[in-house]
Order: sequence, then C-alpha cells, then structure tokens
Amino acid sequence: MDRLNVGILLFDGVEVLDFCGPFEVFSRTRLEPGTASRQSDESAPFRVFTVAREKVEGTFDKDDDVVPVTATGGLRVLPDTAFENTPVIDILVVPGGVGTRSLLNDRLTLDFIRWASGRARITCSVCTGSLLLAKAGLLDCRRATTHWSSLDLLATLGKNIKVQKNRRFVDDGLVTSAGVSAGIDMSLYVVERLCGSKIASDTARYMDYRQMP
Amino acid sequence: MDRLNVGILLFDGVEVLDFCGPFEVFSRTRLEPGTASRQSDESAPFRVFTVAREKVEGTFDKDDDVVPVTATGGLRVLPDTAFENTPVIDILVVPGGVGTRSLLNDRLTLDFIRWASGRARITCSVCTGSLLLAKAGLLDCRRATTHWSSLDLLATLGKNIKVQKNRRFVDDGLVTSAGVSAGIDMSLYVVERLCGSKIASDTARYMDYRQMP
Repeated sequence: MDRLNVGILLFDGVEVLDFCGPFEVFSRTRLEPGTASRQSDESAPFRVFTVAREKVEGTFDKDDDVVPVTATGGLRVLPDTAFENTPVIDILVVPGGVGTRSLLNDRLTLDFIRWASGRARITCSVCTGSLLLAKAGLLDCRRATTHWSSLDLLATLGKNIKVQKNRRFVDDGLVTSAGVSAGIDMSLYVVERLCGSKIASDTARYMDYRQMP
Repeated sequence: MDRLNVGILLFDGVEVLDFCGPFEVFSRTRLEPGTASRQSDESAPFRVFTVAREKVEGTFDKDDDVVPVTATGGLRVLPDTAFENTPVIDILVVPGGVGTRSLLNDRLTLDFIRWASGRARITCSVCTGSLLLAKAGLLDCRRATTHWSSLDLLATLGKNIKVQKNRRFVDDGLVTSAGVSAGIDMSLYVVERLCGSKIASDTARYMDYRQMP
C-alpha cells in the first residue's frame, strides 16, 4: 500500500480536539502492530500534514514566515503548508470549531475544499467542519451529521441534506462526524476502511481508546 | 471561584493527543452550561497555557523568537511561555510521548516539574508523562499508572511506586492517567473535583465524549 497523504485543514478558531484527534489517529497508525513500530515511520500508512489559508512562504522544509493559526482556547499551531503549495491530498480532513462560521462566506476556503475534495480519495469532517462541506455544495442529497448544536443549521446549508442525529459518524460518500471527540471514532473508521479492522483496533489500543458505537 | 491557571508542559516528541485532550477539556469548560457560554471566556474557570523548556523571549503578549515545539507526527506548536517566565500554575499537566525518554535525564525539566508541582494545587500526568513525575521523585510511595507499555518501566523510576494496571486514571495526591486518550477522562475527573459533576458532564457533552470507566 502506498503511503497516503492526509491533509488536515487549519484555521483561526479551529477546535483543538477536532483536528488533534484525527492527527493523532492517522499519524500514529502503523501496519506493524505494537509500540516498537511507532518509534519510526517505516510502517506508517499515512503522511499527515496541516494546511491553512494563511500565506506560507516555502514548503515543508522551509518554514520562515509561516503564520501561526490560533485554535480555540489560544493554542497556536504552525501549519505545514498553504492552499497554494499543498501536496496531493488523498484524505482531506475538515475540522470544526467556532472559526467555521466566518469561513462559511470565505470563497477561497470553500474553493479550496471543493478543489481538494474533488481530487481526494476520502473527504471527511469533524463536528461543525461539515458546515463547510455543506456550504461548498458537497453534502447536497447526502446523509450527514455534525455537532448536536448545529444539526438544524447544517440542514439549511445545502440542498436536501439528510441530517442524521445520534450518530457518531455517517459515511455517505463523504464521511462526517458528530462533535469534537467523535472525530477520533471517524478517523479510526477511515483507517479501518483503508487498512482493515486489525490495524484500526491496534491504533485504538495504542491510544488506550475504546471506540464509541 | 477564581480562575485557575492550567499549565501544560510541551516538549519535542510530546504525543499530540496527550496534551490536546487536557487542553480541550480545561479550555472549553464553562460554569454556564450549553454552547452559547463557550463563545466567550466569561464563565471559564480555567486559563490554559503551554509551557516549554525552550527559550522564549517575552511573555504571553510578545511572541517574537518563540521556538516551536515539534510533537509526535510533526505537529508544530508555539508554546505560550518558557519555564523561567511562567505565571503561577495551579494545575500542572505533564503529557507523555516518546520525547519523555530523553527528558528522564534532563535536570532542567525535572527541576521545573518539581518546582511547579510544589506550588500547584493539582499535578497530573497523561500516559508516559508519569515517568517524568516518577523520575522527579514525586510518585515515591504513591499509587500511579501510565501507558500499558510502560507499566514495568514506571515501577523502576522511583521508590515503592505502586503501579496500577487497567485503571483509566489514579488519584493518590498526584493524578496519573493511562495512555493517550485517557488524559481526556483524567482531565474531566479534575474538572469534576474542582467544579462538580454537573460542570464536568456538561463539558463532556459539549465534546460529545462519553467518559470511560
């Protein structure tokens, strides 16, 4: 299996666990079980990076002039690449957070999501990240979910979005998850789809995580 | 209730979810339940910041020359303050990760942990963060836990540490948790201790998280 690129969108006001849950799952998955395999990237099926709208000069290896993203609660993260420099994204992860609201009218971000999703093998969202997928037109006529407080809003952001309640995640071509921590379960599900249940279970065990139904 | 300062230790090789789980829990807790209260810090009982050994010039408001920390998987985070500049820490959080191994012999880090813990109201660790607490001498004669792969190692790093297996977290004066995701449960437990079970449950519900026994 070729290593797949996982691109995680960052923006000001992104919810910390929304992007860190998937980052943890994808970056710590190994095809070789146990803990020793996690000392290196040798059996890593994924290469994980963060991507932001902010102008980033250079690439992964040159990080002068990178503008930090400020997540909810004030955590400051340096994105790995900007929209215009991103490598191929095989798995696009769109996290949520209060910062999604202003992005609902940000053409550049919505265009990027549409563009990257069109080339990605899997597009997924965590929490209110699905609002951005919806506004980009990607959830029309699909089943989808979001944070419990935004279920009604989600329905208004596209055509005939079949909003699902009380679901940890929903896979209807695009994979959307419920709130915050549900992004961990959603990511483990994507790992299972791509690498099988044994690998996904091994990642969950490494993380001391019991998947929620 | 006065707002309490939560200081989360960062270092190269810190496991992403080890520090992001507690960051999420403490930074998103509100004394006023629901989602609207989380649009501001008004009813926030905690002020969360990250602290690192790396030389940081200035304080929270001046972030020139801050040296980023590279977490496991390559996530780059800008710490808020350095050891020598840290404000009072009421709750000290020591996360784990592969980076703990080299810190077991880092006098400056162990001294900082001892110093900060001596002044803190609560000291807690996630995953292999307990190895650092042990090496700093803080777990002698106490019950404690860590990631399942490091239980035997933990026992060797202090005097008469009573290592507990199959526990999500252990409170014996200092609070230690099992691996990675268990830091979320440990943090919710600390919130419950300080703010009561209703507030902790509201935070868990906001995060769509079901606490693990």
